[in-house]
Amino acid sequence: MKEVRFDDRGLITAVVQDAYTRAVLMVAMMDAEALNLSRTEKLAHFWSRSRQQLWLKGETSGNFLKVREMMLDCDGDAVLLLVEPTGPACHTGAASCFHTLVEN
Amino acid sequence: MKEVRFDDRGLITAVVQDAYTRAVLMVAMMDAEALNLSRTEKLAHFWSRSRQQLWLKGETSGNFLKVREMMLDCDGDAVLLLVEPTGPACHTGAASCFHTLVEN
Repeated sequence: MKEVRFDDRGLITAVVQDAYTRAVLMVAMMDAEALNLSRTEKLAHFWSRSRQQLWLKGETSGNFLKVREMMLDCDGDAVLLLVEPTGPACHTGAASCFHTLVEN
Repeated sequence: MKEVRFDDRGLITAVVQDAYTRAVLMVAMMDAEALNLSRTEKLAHFWSRSRQQLWLKGETSGNFLKVREMMLDCDGDAVLLLVEPTGPACHTGAASCFHTLVEN
């Protein structure tokens, strides 16, 4: 995947979308290892900036994100994962992490 | 919007989704001004890291993103914009910037 452009921290932005409902579930960062594991293992992996370690989404909650397809954006610094979630994506129990309306 | 958490550069990640087709169109960064203008002017604004300036999406291409709804994520460091695009979101002319399949 030579077209991937990691930033100065070695990371790219990953957007996770439910392949069926089309809801955007979450945003996280990936390093090269997380990107490669997501691609080969078909389970979403990320780089946890707070814990500074590889993070298999679902490793503690059991709510994995099965990867169906991955799309890179035009400038190679973001990846879209189309997934089948095995449970809520958000730690609050919500299906999506995006659940706070920004008021006008 | 005191629940917004800007990073050490004063930015948050913005994901843009077509409100009707539900396609994820692009990812970009916003500073406080871009976030506020997107909210009040109902047209997506970003912070261009390459040009280091405020960027009204469509100001040169004419392809604006009309903001229908904005959702903040659970930890306040990403925002989802549901938009009505007036043209292709990608500078390549594609509807979405995510058009390169990552092979297995």
